[in-house]
Amino acid sequence: MPLTAPLRGVVPPVCTPLDAHGEVDTASLARLAEHLLGGGVHGLFALGSTSEVAYLTDEQRGAALETVVNAVDGRVPVLAGVIDTTTPRVLDHAREAARLGADALVVTAPFYTRTHPREIADHFRRVRQTVDLPLFAYDLPVSVHSKLSPALILELAADGTLAGLKDSSGDEGSLRRLLVALGGRQGRAEGPAPAFSVLTGSELTVDAALLAGVDGVVPGLGNVDPAGYVRLYEAAGASDWPQAAREQERLAGLFAMVDAGPEAEMGRSSSALGAFKAALRLLGVIDCGDTAFPQIQLGAAPVAEVDARLRAAGLTPVR
Amino acid sequence: MPLTAPLRGVVPPVCTPLDAHGEVDTASLARLAEHLLGGGVHGLFALGSTSEVAYLTDEQRGAALETVVNAVDGRVPVLAGVIDTTTPRVLDHAREAARLGADALVVTAPFYTRTHPREIADHFRRVRQTVDLPLFAYDLPVSVHSKLSPALILELAADGTLAGLKDSSGDEGSLRRLLVALGGRQGRAEGPAPAFSVLTGSELTVDAALLAGVDGVVPGLGNVDPAGYVRLYEAAGASDWPQAAREQERLAGLFAMVDAGPEAEMGRSSSALGAFKAALRLLGVIDCGDTAFPQIQLGAAPVAEVDARLRAAGLTPVR
Amino acid sequence: MPLTAPLRGVVPPVCTPLDAHGEVDTASLARLAEHLLGGGVHGLFALGSTSEVAYLTDEQRGAALETVVNAVDGRVPVLAGVIDTTTPRVLDHAREAARLGADALVVTAPFYTRTHPREIADHFRRVRQTVDLPLFAYDLPVSVHSKLSPALILELAADGTLAGLKDSSGDEGSLRRLLVALGGRQGRAEGPAPAFSVLTGSELTVDAALLAGVDGVVPGLGNVDPAGYVRLYEAAGASDWPQAAREQERLAGLFAMVDAGPEAEMGRSSSALGAFKAALRLLGVIDCGDTAFPQIQLGAAPVAEVDARLRAAGLTPVR
Amino acid sequence: MPLTAPLRGVVPPVCTPLDAHGEVDTASLARLAEHLLGGGVHGLFALGSTSEVAYLTDEQRGAALETVVNAVDGRVPVLAGVIDTTTPRVLDHAREAARLGADALVVTAPFYTRTHPREIADHFRRVRQTVDLPLFAYDLPVSVHSKLSPALILELAADGTLAGLKDSSGDEGSLRRLLVALGGRQGRAEGPAPAFSVLTGSELTVDAALLAGVDGVVPGLGNVDPAGYVRLYEAAGASDWPQAAREQERLAGLFAMVDAGPEAEMGRSSSALGAFKAALRLLGVIDCGDTAFPQIQLGAAPVAEVDARLRAAGLTPVR
Repeated sequence: MPLTAPLRGVVPPVCTPLDAHGEVDTASLARLAEHLLGGGVHGLFALGSTSEVAYLTDEQRGAALETVVNAVDGRVPVLAGVIDTTTPRVLDHAREAARLGADALVVTAPFYTRTHPREIADHFRRVRQTVDLPLFAYDLPVSVHSKLSPALILELAADGTLAGLKDSSGDEGSLRRLLVALGGRQGRAEGPAPAFSVLTGSELTVDAALLAGVDGVVPGLGNVDPAGYVRLYEAAGASDWPQAAREQERLAGLFAMVDAGPEAEMGRSSSALGAFKAALRLLGVIDCGDTAFPQIQLGAAPVAEVDARLRAAGLTPVR
Repeated sequence: MPLTAPLRGVVPPVCTPLDAHGEVDTASLARLAEHLLGGGVHGLFALGSTSEVAYLTDEQRGAALETVVNAVDGRVPVLAGVIDTTTPRVLDHAREAARLGADALVVTAPFYTRTHPREIADHFRRVRQTVDLPLFAYDLPVSVHSKLSPALILELAADGTLAGLKDSSGDEGSLRRLLVALGGRQGRAEGPAPAFSVLTGSELTVDAALLAGVDGVVPGLGNVDPAGYVRLYEAAGASDWPQAAREQERLAGLFAMVDAGPEAEMGRSSSALGAFKAALRLLGVIDCGDTAFPQIQLGAAPVAEVDARLRAAGLTPVR
Repeated sequence: MPLTAPLRGVVPPVCTPLDAHGEVDTASLARLAEHLLGGGVHGLFALGSTSEVAYLTDEQRGAALETVVNAVDGRVPVLAGVIDTTTPRVLDHAREAARLGADALVVTAPFYTRTHPREIADHFRRVRQTVDLPLFAYDLPVSVHSKLSPALILELAADGTLAGLKDSSGDEGSLRRLLVALGGRQGRAEGPAPAFSVLTGSELTVDAALLAGVDGVVPGLGNVDPAGYVRLYEAAGASDWPQAAREQERLAGLFAMVDAGPEAEMGRSSSALGAFKAALRLLGVIDCGDTAFPQIQLGAAPVAEVDARLRAAGLTPVR
Repeated sequence: MPLTAPLRGVVPPVCTPLDAHGEVDTASLARLAEHLLGGGVHGLFALGSTSEVAYLTDEQRGAALETVVNAVDGRVPVLAGVIDTTTPRVLDHAREAARLGADALVVTAPFYTRTHPREIADHFRRVRQTVDLPLFAYDLPVSVHSKLSPALILELAADGTLAGLKDSSGDEGSLRRLLVALGGRQGRAEGPAPAFSVLTGSELTVDAALLAGVDGVVPGLGNVDPAGYVRLYEAAGASDWPQAAREQERLAGLFAMVDAGPEAEMGRSSSALGAFKAALRLLGVIDCGDTAFPQIQLGAAPVAEVDARLRAAGLTPVR
């Protein structure tokens, strides 16, 4: 579904189910897409960090994106992460994503190398000029190790390079300053970038971000409970802020599953992604909860904790 | 005013006006305290980072705290920062703060040295056991270079070591998880620490933090516009969240003064503290806007920008 | 030239000359390889950070590696960087490097994702088991944002996973502890890993590292002055440490070219790589000094500074 | 002993022995000073990080410095750390150190606050102008969280603000560039700052640093084995670099005691300082090995490891 207006709503970054050999389980992935659409989400973000994009070969990236595009079949927009170290490599992914039918691209600043803001601006501009799809900047300092400044985002919004921002920086103060500079929650439409979409990736403060004026949310936990995030979004839309906060609190309790894996034994990313996938397996959505190599897999005790978190949040495991 | 219940409301960290020789200008400081009380604030926090505590000699710290305690004269509680590298040095400050009439102490984790969470817990416990005043943990990674984990705060809340937390970590996701663990916005009273007070120091997301369930805010910008933060707090108390957000947006615009000083010429801390003090001078509250040595002083152009920000936010300079 | 014993000596990371369209200039690259061999180097490292590997598409990586392998024609070993975010992607590069005739692989820990030491160990083991070539760990925290601990290196040396380490961590104290644990400068041959090769990437402290017992050096600046690094290595081999230090001092003066590009206008990586390439162009080795997009190019003044640094170090520009 | 020429040689940062109540054990401290002088050291550095200066009250700092000055009785220069957050607080310590007879001051950049290089330069200048003692800059990013740039050091050396630098940054490449800019190992006397003394605090690479041209070393481990560092310094002075390297290797093996304390249970600083003090107690130099509160104390097993490290390095515990 082409993006004709600012993207709004709940846009989960879609997990990539793998089979026992580490290959993309396209049947499970199609079921996951259906699970998300059934929850009422407004878009899907394939090949993001939660999709384990950094662990997927080019071939696997293609298989995952193609599966999502086909499963969605135009019902909502599909954003595709085109994540790589620098512009030349990103462009290869971007062309492929366009060929496979993505409706928009999501791009980080260069990483692995030390880059200057002017170089980062040139990077986004080149991607936008080369592949004709709406472009979202992905601000993820925990992975990219630099922060996109509000000034840079404003510049790239004003000149039409960017259609939006996915802010996973965790810097809510900086986000607020950006939103105010964009015109504030009331005045966004009259601002310098009327069609600019600000999405938060901070899944624990979505009520707050919506109150501050973001357009939507890209919640990793939305894989597990898409309907919960949709209810939260709708409560905010109805200005029922206490209800939005209650829903957010329930989701924050559910989110605690990300620490199920013992810190002494595995990375925090492996624990979080493993918990989301374990939850999806317990809910019957996907067949296998494995994360990609070399991530350590969750043992029985962490999976039992995921099960308990699901039940406490009112979700019912089916296995 | 002794703390007999969880501290709630707006508790500005009080700037420390200096004279042309770099000494504490007690007359200006007393006027500032009156300015804040006149704005309706619910407590004052002396000797915090915004007070330039790191730049004040022991003698100057004493003069500043004594002035604030005397000016307040029991109308609201006075919290005193007792900021130093480790426990033995903090205890010396804590005893002096108690002697001068502080109602509560605010303490960071040890800094300059690399410290373990067990050592940090022992640090807070020793301070609480040695000086009989309510104790607030001050989470300020930008200065202390370690983050207080929610688990540590919960442990020290549950055993009565801490009366509260001043969270200036900027990590709103972590704060949300702490609030949920403390019982959530509804259930705080039934939680493990009924009298535990959570204050945010993130002055750009106060509406969001109040929606999430914090008890109050410690806004540096509250020196300049205490009444604005009080209105924001009261709108939240009345569940008028759109009004709270509008007030927050106005304050975010005002806050942009912190970048008045050119980044190539001075530290970000000097720029921010210089802007707050320039604003207080322009508003007629204090006599001299100088910050402590070796901070670079704001030039005429940055002060003019501060003036413009005041007017844009509806405040009227008198000089 | 297959690696049959620990790699020793000077092994420059080979710059990748580009033409005006940003494509690999294979003729210039072949000349550069000949320039390095003419300087007496003991191996070449293609597709490292200095090779702008992070900016090269898969196709360009293949062209660069193939050119170097063909130009060297077995005279010295060719190490190939197989740099990507995680194991599955690294394996694709590793298979291609083996196919193109690399003699050894150079691999970093996973990046972009947050990884645990156990996961890093599994990563190196899987690469070694999958592609049958000697494997060097590449410790480069400035890009990878994690440090390989001496304990991890010792474990992977002892079990035969690693043939060596390229240490670009800049942590000379940690390197010294590793060397002592490997048996010290005298006892390396009797240590747990007799064939283990330790190479430093810290081009300003090569005399010191050789005194401490490293086997060789991977100097980016060695592109510009390979003979200088070979003289330094040979002085150390002859235990003429004052001469080694004098050569290192001359090279440190030459190295100052990396700051030629103004800090306000371009990244530090762009400045350093641009300076090396400008020097190679001035010396007549390559045709065009451009770095890959989106790096900012050096202007005339920085190139003049590179020229001056060359002359001051006794090297003679030919254009 | 007044500093009349560049300080050269081995200048250990003196541990501060404490009694069972956490007070300065002046008798043990005097014995420690004698132990160090007996080892042939060329100066003493009191109230540095290894002295636990961050844990000592003002009164304890005074007691420690006075004890060292009296014990040394003019035989070697005594440098005094005057460590605090900003200039006004540092000046109070500096005046007291001068009063107690220190021969030079050692000062870090401001910490706790975010400071600009211009502010750091003003800070050092003000200290030098206010207290008439030779001034050493102390570069310790692990505690101060900013790095002193070579450019800043060169500026403050050239204008006479600084008599020297204690470089504990661990950035040996940056140190090399500074030394080359100061004239190199041969030409230091003709450089811009003929009397400028560069001391390294990196105790594992002293041979390398001396080869590169530093004037001396400030080794924490020198408390335990001052004679070893003096032998290393003398071997370097005699240009017997292999012997210097062998001595450094032996000391690197001894240094491994710093990891005796289990990482899961205590801070790295507590482990290292605890190991040094345990070693001094085992060697009969001081009476009690306790570190200051809130540091966790070493248990029996770590102390046994310290004992083993001492014996392996040829030192003989007496209890």
